[in-house]
Amino acid sequence: MTHTQPSSGTIKIAEYLLARLQQLGIRSIFGVPGDYNLRLLDFVEPAGLHWIGNCNELNAAYAADAYARVNGLSALITTYGVGELSAINGIAGAFTEKAGIIHIVGTPARDLQLARKKVHHTLADGDYRHFATMASHVTIAQANLMDPSTVPEQIDWTLQQAMIYSQPVYIELPDDMVDVTISASRLSTPISVPERLACPDEPLQEVLERIYKAQQPLILVDGECGSMRILDEVDELAKITGWPTWTTVFGKGLVNEELLNVYGHYNGSLGSKAWQAYFDSADLIIALGPHYTDTNTYNFTTIPRDEVSILLSKAMVQIGSRRYRDIPDGFLFRLLRRLDKDRVPKVQAPPRSTATENRNMIDHDTALVQKTFYSYVNRAFRPGDLILTETGTAAHGGRQFKLPPQSRLFGPATWLSIGYMLPATLGAAVAKRELSENANARAILFIGDGSLQMSVQEISTIIKEKLNVIIFIINNGGYTIERAIHGRKQSYNDIASWRHQHTIAFFGGTEEQSANSFSARTYAELDRILEDDRIQKGSGLRVVEVFMGQEDVEGALLKLMEDQISAEQP
Amino acid sequence: MTHTQPSSGTIKIAEYLLARLQQLGIRSIFGVPGDYNLRLLDFVEPAGLHWIGNCNELNAAYAADAYARVNGLSALITTYGVGELSAINGIAGAFTEKAGIIHIVGTPARDLQLARKKVHHTLADGDYRHFATMASHVTIAQANLMDPSTVPEQIDWTLQQAMIYSQPVYIELPDDMVDVTISASRLSTPISVPERLACPDEPLQEVLERIYKAQQPLILVDGECGSMRILDEVDELAKITGWPTWTTVFGKGLVNEELLNVYGHYNGSLGSKAWQAYFDSADLIIALGPHYTDTNTYNFTTIPRDEVSILLSKAMVQIGSRRYRDIPDGFLFRLLRRLDKDRVPKVQAPPRSTATENRNMIDHDTALVQKTFYSYVNRAFRPGDLILTETGTAAHGGRQFKLPPQSRLFGPATWLSIGYMLPATLGAAVAKRELSENANARAILFIGDGSLQMSVQEISTIIKEKLNVIIFIINNGGYTIERAIHGRKQSYNDIASWRHQHTIAFFGGTEEQSANSFSARTYAELDRILEDDRIQKGSGLRVVEVFMGQEDVEGALLKLMEDQISAEQP
Repeated sequence: MTHTQPSSGTIKIAEYLLARLQQLGIRSIFGVPGDYNLRLLDFVEPAGLHWIGNCNELNAAYAADAYARVNGLSALITTYGVGELSAINGIAGAFTEKAGIIHIVGTPARDLQLARKKVHHTLADGDYRHFATMASHVTIAQANLMDPSTVPEQIDWTLQQAMIYSQPVYIELPDDMVDVTISASRLSTPISVPERLACPDEPLQEVLERIYKAQQPLILVDGECGSMRILDEVDELAKITGWPTWTTVFGKGLVNEELLNVYGHYNGSLGSKAWQAYFDSADLIIALGPHYTDTNTYNFTTIPRDEVSILLSKAMVQIGSRRYRDIPDGFLFRLLRRLDKDRVPKVQAPPRSTATENRNMIDHDTALVQKTFYSYVNRAFRPGDLILTETGTAAHGGRQFKLPPQSRLFGPATWLSIGYMLPATLGAAVAKRELSENANARAILFIGDGSLQMSVQEISTIIKEKLNVIIFIINNGGYTIERAIHGRKQSYNDIASWRHQHTIAFFGGTEEQSANSFSARTYAELDRILEDDRIQKGSGLRVVEVFMGQEDVEGALLKLMEDQISAEQP
Repeated sequence: MTHTQPSSGTIKIAEYLLARLQQLGIRSIFGVPGDYNLRLLDFVEPAGLHWIGNCNELNAAYAADAYARVNGLSALITTYGVGELSAINGIAGAFTEKAGIIHIVGTPARDLQLARKKVHHTLADGDYRHFATMASHVTIAQANLMDPSTVPEQIDWTLQQAMIYSQPVYIELPDDMVDVTISASRLSTPISVPERLACPDEPLQEVLERIYKAQQPLILVDGECGSMRILDEVDELAKITGWPTWTTVFGKGLVNEELLNVYGHYNGSLGSKAWQAYFDSADLIIALGPHYTDTNTYNFTTIPRDEVSILLSKAMVQIGSRRYRDIPDGFLFRLLRRLDKDRVPKVQAPPRSTATENRNMIDHDTALVQKTFYSYVNRAFRPGDLILTETGTAAHGGRQFKLPPQSRLFGPATWLSIGYMLPATLGAAVAKRELSENANARAILFIGDGSLQMSVQEISTIIKEKLNVIIFIINNGGYTIERAIHGRKQSYNDIASWRHQHTIAFFGGTEEQSANSFSARTYAELDRILEDDRIQKGSGLRVVEVFMGQEDVEGALLKLMEDQISAEQP
């Protein structure tokens, strides 16, 4: 059966799988070739999908994660054992922060598996199930495509899980199954998310009542709004109510910051006292897409009290301490349709932040510092830009950005795997390019020198893909975020010093591209760079190295650093 | 109890653990700082151990693997979740090919774990056991240090498992346990490998009889001899018997190649017909440290028949199809003591190989090719060198090396994770430097341009550690080993082209060091490089880029490539 041409109504397994990915809006696939996936890769470009060969599998997983966050879903192809395990940390991050990666692993042919042959990329113990068991901890669904008769249903079910939950799924495709013929009949029916039963009236009514009688309400936009795909409704709720709206760390960038009632991100006791007072005495906090982990809630200090909370999560609404489960995805949409605008109370809002430094107040000949760098560079952003801030001082600084319309911020929430954000820049930029009519859209990455070393080679793929990317490398001589937490002066927080000005040239940029390398130590130098045509109007990769102090930290990190310094006093 | 100074007879947990590592001969620790391991790292340098901060955790695991293969055991410190999962592919490789890595993971404080707090680096589901469960698939023993009263025994037991089996172990150290005080009493008793009961006489006698009556015997040295720590006995057996001795792929370099009866590595039908005839009609094959996986046995074709085999494995001797289990480690040692040299038959040995190209026969102005490059460059090796050949054409070429005395070859056996060999060069070179009185000892790496991209940043650590390393980068425009297997002309086997001449400068070498960059396209150019004083007598890192054809393959790979080309014919 295997090597015949598919008759009408039949199709090869690889073609079926790739056709399904196409239907789900996936246009590019990330991964690395390996000898158990080569036959599958033969089908990728013929299926009209773009193959992005990454430098290694962890980077590929990171890129696929970010692609999914922009595009909805993504696909990753690795090889059995060595490839998939290299990627598994990236898969775990996508599981935690809800990015729907379809991870396809090319596995040894069925004959080898069933005979328990000791082939390469196994643990040489004849057991072929180790890696699938490991993957089951960090994926929402798994399928092993061993029987052609069940393959279409297995594929469809697995992909559907990724669609429903926006979390990674795991598909094993044995090498000898790639070109086995199966029925194509299911292909004509698109995979869809199953409908939940109609929304019960009770929670809807209860939320409306709470809205109408609120006296000091606020809206808190959290990170899971992204994977819940309710961003339009979030904007609409903020706009219709006019209520003070903040985001969490993870929610930053998921609501239109041009709205006058959108205040930015809420940082509890570290921020405005007036905001904190408003929060603490609020009688209604509508938390959208809540994700209450330590790093997203200033160590659990900014979680609203249950008594005043309404939580809108995936398939659940919680009002006070009462939970309504199995709520349809359209809950917020329906709520907005039912909302009587005239009955929405007007509120006495707290003052907006005045913390942002005026750029004219900075002495331009002084050294760049964390406190003012981010608001200073903010003017380089344009509508539609993707802004990415890596775990570390960059992410903390990026919380202060004022984002232009249609832009999107990527910051770490919970998984916080350093090294993520550079390959994520690749993945997000590829997705943005595919979705956007604005060919001018850019991705702008802020990353520390320590994080950069984790996954630096993916710069090569950014160059190869001709993406519009600007990388600000914060050169502060090591892991400054760790210094803030512990070991301020310890050498284990140092790193080797690299020549970042050689980056583009080393990773294969042309001589002309290599000229897009900049470096600044002062605001005056930064000014000249930001005004340079190659930054303003240029394309391709540009690298800007900015120097800052080894112990220069701000915000929550400053507090940690200060605590550490006082603990050091005798 | 926690923050008091240890009284006499007590010690902090971190100090206990690190003192044990010291006792086991570990001098350097690999890893990456993360906020759940920083407090542990405070103790590393004070304990007299050298901290090698790697660029990322996978590279750190690879380096620790190679350090263990040279040193016996190694240690790796990562942080919970993100760090340990990044490393897990390297741990799996060490599990498969038997390298004793002690993997210590800094985990969240017990209070957080027991309260199931949703902290960063977790899956945000309150379950702290996912990663330990995943690790249990690829480690031989696990310990979670949650109770000070059991900690000394847990640590000792876990380390003992690594000593016995030369496979990775996994130790979780919660952040709040680092400086908890425990009894130091066990420390005065070194951890030792438990004795097995005396060797039964029967297998010993049977092996001796088989040796005495052999007519066409041979010795096959395989890769597990390294982790079995019987290399001196292997050399002695080869020397005393004078019998024809070959190695497998994995065993290459584990027996003294200066002995006249050591033929090199056995490659079955791809090699000498006379050798194959001798093998096929042998009446006794003593296989030492057998590891019969596809890639180590030319796809299972070079595995000796049971009827003529004696297998000496860890704790097992197999004679024909009869297995004797629980055999003491000293079996081969005792066998040698009992062996009556006068009764060892002299044999009619097959001719030695004549395949090695005479370097004078090569036209020096021709381009470098896989067929002759390796034997040509062989003359650059010196006694004591570590030679490392990465998966791909380099590993296949390296099988032909004639190794000088006291040298050691690293080649891929079964796990074959590309990207391994560069960080392995770091780890092996660090171990060699610590063990060796020969400060001049070098590590020489042969690696393809595709593999290099996987883990390239670890070059920076090689520079920082001032190791004597020569890297030959085989620039052949992509994954040539994959082209041989499948997809000869497919673009998914291409990679971005880098400027390897910038390598040392980019990764932070001084201007003087950066001058140690070379490149050759012809044998004449290669000659000039090999004769250059910087290669002959220099120190630090030197990078030699050698260009070869995209489809230029030899040996087993050539056969695969030829099969593919014939399959392409209509």
